[in-house]
Amino acid sequence: MVGVASKRDITEELRPLFDPRTVAVIGATNNWNKWGFSTFSSALDGFKGKVYPINNKRESVLGHESFKRVIDIPDEVDLAAFVIPAPGVPEVMEDCVQKGVKAAVIISAGFAETGEEGKRLQDEVLEIARRGGIRFVGPNCMGFWSASSELRAFMFPLQVESGPIAFVSQGGNLGGAIVMSAYERGVGFRRYVSCGCTADIQIEDYIEHFGRDPEVKVILTYIEGLNDGRRFIDKVKKITPKKPVVALKPGKSEVTARAIKSHSGALCGSSEVYEEVFKETGVIRVETPEELLDVAIGFLTQPLPRGRNVAITTPGGSYGVLCADDCSSNKLNVITLSEEVLNHLDEMFPPRWSHGNPVDPAGDRNIAAYLKAPEILLKLEEVDSLIFMGFGSFSGFGGSMATMFQSSVFEEMLAPATEMFKPENVSQWDIRSVISLVSPLFSAGDEKGRKEFEELIASAVESGEVDISSSLLTGIRSLFTSDGKIELVRLTDTFRLFDSFLGGLVLHWIKTYGKPVVTTTFTEMGSHLNLKGGFYYSYPSPQRAARVLARLSEYKEYLERISEGSV
Amino acid sequence: MVGVASKRDITEELRPLFDPRTVAVIGATNNWNKWGFSTFSSALDGFKGKVYPINNKRESVLGHESFKRVIDIPDEVDLAAFVIPAPGVPEVMEDCVQKGVKAAVIISAGFAETGEEGKRLQDEVLEIARRGGIRFVGPNCMGFWSASSELRAFMFPLQVESGPIAFVSQGGNLGGAIVMSAYERGVGFRRYVSCGCTADIQIEDYIEHFGRDPEVKVILTYIEGLNDGRRFIDKVKKITPKKPVVALKPGKSEVTARAIKSHSGALCGSSEVYEEVFKETGVIRVETPEELLDVAIGFLTQPLPRGRNVAITTPGGSYGVLCADDCSSNKLNVITLSEEVLNHLDEMFPPRWSHGNPVDPAGDRNIAAYLKAPEILLKLEEVDSLIFMGFGSFSGFGGSMATMFQSSVFEEMLAPATEMFKPENVSQWDIRSVISLVSPLFSAGDEKGRKEFEELIASAVESGEVDISSSLLTGIRSLFTSDGKIELVRLTDTFRLFDSFLGGLVLHWIKTYGKPVVTTTFTEMGSHLNLKGGFYYSYPSPQRAARVLARLSEYKEYLERISEGSV
Repeated sequence: MVGVASKRDITEELRPLFDPRTVAVIGATNNWNKWGFSTFSSALDGFKGKVYPINNKRESVLGHESFKRVIDIPDEVDLAAFVIPAPGVPEVMEDCVQKGVKAAVIISAGFAETGEEGKRLQDEVLEIARRGGIRFVGPNCMGFWSASSELRAFMFPLQVESGPIAFVSQGGNLGGAIVMSAYERGVGFRRYVSCGCTADIQIEDYIEHFGRDPEVKVILTYIEGLNDGRRFIDKVKKITPKKPVVALKPGKSEVTARAIKSHSGALCGSSEVYEEVFKETGVIRVETPEELLDVAIGFLTQPLPRGRNVAITTPGGSYGVLCADDCSSNKLNVITLSEEVLNHLDEMFPPRWSHGNPVDPAGDRNIAAYLKAPEILLKLEEVDSLIFMGFGSFSGFGGSMATMFQSSVFEEMLAPATEMFKPENVSQWDIRSVISLVSPLFSAGDEKGRKEFEELIASAVESGEVDISSSLLTGIRSLFTSDGKIELVRLTDTFRLFDSFLGGLVLHWIKTYGKPVVTTTFTEMGSHLNLKGGFYYSYPSPQRAARVLARLSEYKEYLERISEGSV
Repeated sequence: MVGVASKRDITEELRPLFDPRTVAVIGATNNWNKWGFSTFSSALDGFKGKVYPINNKRESVLGHESFKRVIDIPDEVDLAAFVIPAPGVPEVMEDCVQKGVKAAVIISAGFAETGEEGKRLQDEVLEIARRGGIRFVGPNCMGFWSASSELRAFMFPLQVESGPIAFVSQGGNLGGAIVMSAYERGVGFRRYVSCGCTADIQIEDYIEHFGRDPEVKVILTYIEGLNDGRRFIDKVKKITPKKPVVALKPGKSEVTARAIKSHSGALCGSSEVYEEVFKETGVIRVETPEELLDVAIGFLTQPLPRGRNVAITTPGGSYGVLCADDCSSNKLNVITLSEEVLNHLDEMFPPRWSHGNPVDPAGDRNIAAYLKAPEILLKLEEVDSLIFMGFGSFSGFGGSMATMFQSSVFEEMLAPATEMFKPENVSQWDIRSVISLVSPLFSAGDEKGRKEFEELIASAVESGEVDISSSLLTGIRSLFTSDGKIELVRLTDTFRLFDSFLGGLVLHWIKTYGKPVVTTTFTEMGSHLNLKGGFYYSYPSPQRAARVLARLSEYKEYLERISEGSV
C-alpha cells in the first residue's frame, strides 16, 4: 500500500495541503489541556484563511462557531487536521471524502508505530483517503508549517518565520526544536513537515515538492526509515543537482533500531545501507541536529568552495591549534603559506606572530591589521575558503571589560564623543561618526591604525551588504544617559556593535572574493549572534565551522562528479 | 633545564603565587591600548592585597603611585607580573631577585615559541629566577586567577567566580573562553592558570598543587605538549585516584603540530603516545572545549555511576532515538526493561507509549506520570544512571505558547491565582501556593494528576536540595502588573519556573538513589539554564549528555582497576 505516487505533478498535488483557503480542525476544544486546544490555537495563529472547529459537542471553540461533522461546514474545506483518538479517524475520513476535502494532516497517534493492529487501522484510513483523492501527512506526527499560507497546522503554536529552508522530519519534537532554534538564530522556513508514519506522502515526495519550489534554497530531512529506498533514490537524485539535500539519519545500533520501530514505526535499516543511498543520491549526511542547522545556514550564507584548501585567522593561538585539528579531521587542507605571503604579513604584525597558517597575531592590539589579513589570504589563488575566528567573542569579552571602562582613562577619551552624541546633535549621526566613536577601542591607538580601521569598516558598511542602522542606533542610544552623558559601564554594548560592523565586513569579503568566509566565536560565548538585524551568524566552535565547510566541499565535489558524468 | 622540581612541598612552593599579599605589575600604564593597562586594571579588580605599578616614566597609574624599578617599592613584594617586551625581562628579573620577590608571572611573549633566539632568552630568565628561588608562570601566557586571594593576574579583567574547579591551560584564549563560558553557566574556579611556554612550573606541577588543595574537586587541563612525559605520569598518577583529571589534547595531524610549535613552543607528540600517557595515569580525555566543561560539571553535580547501564526518559520519541544512538556510540548500554517494569509503566501511560527504553509517553499530557517514571527506573538494580530529556525545553517552548496564553480560557483559569497574588497577600506566599499557581499548566487537567504533580514538586523543594525561593519570587512577580493583575503573555515565565522546580526534583532523585541523573534540553534551546539561583545545569544535546556519562563511567572503571591493583 505504501509509496504509490499519483501521476499528477507533486506541486499541484500538495497545493491544498500547503496553501489551503479553509482548514477544519477535528477535535478542536476549549479544554486547554488537550492537544485539540493547542492545535486549534496554532491554526488560528497567523493563518491567512479560515479555520473551522469540529467537535462532538458542537460548542463554540475560542469564540469560533463549531460543527459536529465536517459535512456540516457551510463552506468548501481544503484541509482537515485530525486531533482525535486513532479509532475515530476512519469514520471522520469518510466524512472528509463525502465533503470533498482535498488534503489532511493526521496528528493522532496509535497507528503503525504501535504494532499490527495499528497498522491495520492505518491501512484502512489510507484506503479511504485514496478513494477520495485525499493526500495526507502522518499519522502520528506533529503537523506542519507552510510559509506561503502562514499556516501552523501544528500541535502547538510553533515559533517560526518565513525563509528559504524546507524541512521534512520523521521526528516532530526534534524538528520543532530545530525550527525554534533556527528562529532564535534568525533563520526561517518555507515549509516544515513532521511526517510521522508516512502512510501516504513519503519523505521523497516532500523532497521532490521542495525541489520544485523556487522559494526553497536548501532541503533538510531527518529520516528514521524509508518505506521504499529505490523510490527515494530515483526521486531525490533528480533534486540534489539543483539544490542541496542535507540528512540526519540515526541508526548505529540494535538499540536505536528498536527505539525507531516504537517511535515512527519505521524499519531502521543499517547505517551502511543508508550511507550508500546518500552517496548515490548526493545527499549530505550530518551527525547531529545542531549540524543539520549549521550546514543549512552554511549553504544559505556561503558560496560553494572551489576546493578544500583553507586559511585560518585567529586572535588566539590555542583556538588556531584546535581549528587546524578540526580541519584535519574533516579532510580540509590547512595550506602552507608562501614566503611572499609570510613576508607581506610580517610587515603588518609584530615579530611574535605565528609565521604560518593559522595566522595568529599573538595578542597584537592592532585590530586593523587583523582585519586586513583576510583580504591578503582570500586574494590567493591557492586559498579556497577562510575560517575567521573570534567573531562574536568581542561581544563575549565585553562583559569582562566593564571594570576597565569605569576608569578615568576612558572618561577622558570619550569626552569628544559625548559632545557629538548630545541629543541636540542626533540629526547629524551617520555611519562614519558612529564608527569614529567605536574605533578608538579597537584600533592600535595610533592615528594610522585608527584611520585604517575606520576606512575598512565604513567601506564595507557603505557598500550595503548589510543594513545595521537600526541595531546601531539602538546600541548607541543605550550608551547615553537621559542627559546625554556616556555611561561608561555600557561601553560593553559597543563590543556588540563591533560584531555588527564585522558582519558587514565579512559579507563584503564573501561578495568580493566569491569564497566562503566561515566565522566562529569561542566556546559558545557570543553565540547569541544571529542573522537578524544585520548581525551575521557565527558558529560557536571551530569544530562546527570546519564541519560546515567540509559539507559544503562535499556537495561541490558531488556537483563536479555529476558534470563530469561520473554519477 | 626544564622540569627541575624543587624538593619543597608544592603547596608551600606556590603559595606566594596564588596567595600573595603584594603584587607589582611591571609595564603598568595609563595607555589603555596596551596590555599593561588591562593587566593592571585586572590585578586591581577584587584583589585582597596591594598592587604596585612599575613603569619607566614613574607616573602614577590609574591614581596609584608608580615606581621606576621593583627595588624602589617601599614594601615586600610577593608576586611580580611582567607585561613588558621580552628583551627587557631578564634585567627586571634580576631586580626581582635583588628585591626578594617570591613568585612571578611572565605574560610577555617572544620566548621559546618564536625559535632558537627566544629559547635562549627564556633560558636566561629561568636561570636568573632559579638563582633567586623565584617560581614563575609562563612566559607567553595570559596569566592566572586565584580564588583564595581573589587575584586576577591576567591580561584582562576575567569574568570568573570562586568555585571547585582548577584548570591549567596551555592556551590562554581557550582557557579564558572556557572560564567565561563557565561563568555564564554558573560554575566557578579555585584556580585558572594560563601556563604558556612552561619554562619553570610544569603542567604536572600545577596538577599536583591542585590535587593537594582540598577546595579543588575536579582538575581540567588543556595540553599542547609536555616537556617531560615521564615526570607527568609519575606526578599525575598520584592525583587521579583522589580526584578526576580531565584533559583536552589536540594533535591529530602534522598541521596541528606545526600550529602548536608556533603557539606554545611545545613539541606536539603523537596522539597515540598521549593516549597511552592518559591511560596509564587515569586522565580522562575529551574531544572539545565544550566537553571539557561539560565533564567538569558532570563530576561536580553527579555521583559516579556503578556501571554503564542507562535508562532514558524522553518527552519526544525522536530525541529518544538520537539519545539511544549516542549512548551506543559511547559504549553505554541502553537496557531492555523487564516485563514487570513495562507493566508498571503501562498503568501510568496511554496505550501509545513506547513500551521500552527509551521511555517515551508519546505526547501524553500527564506530566505527573512523566515525573514519576524516573523513580521507577532509578529504583531498579539493573539501572546505573538515567538520562532525563526535555529539561530546559519547557523554557524553550514557553515563547511558542504565548499565543495560547492570550486566550480567554487562561484568563478564566487564573482568576483565583490573581486573587491569591494580590500585593496585599504577598506575605502569605509560600512554596505550595506558588506551585498551585503553576501546576494547572503542567498537570493532566484532572484533579488527581494535579495533586500528584504538586506533591512531587513540593516534597522535592521542601527537602531542601535546592533553594529556589529568590528566583521563584522574581519569576512570580514578573507575572503581575503593577495593579496586581496577571499579564497572560508573561505566563511564558512560568515555564522557566517549572524548570526551576524540576531542578529540585532531579537533585532529590540524585540524593535519594545515589545514581547520576543527567538532563538534556533540545537542540540548544533553553541552554541558558545554569547552576545559579537554584537552576540545574542541563546539557544542550543528548550527544553531550551521553559523552559526560561515558566519561564518568571511564573514571569509575579506572578507580575500580586501581582498587583491584591492576593499575
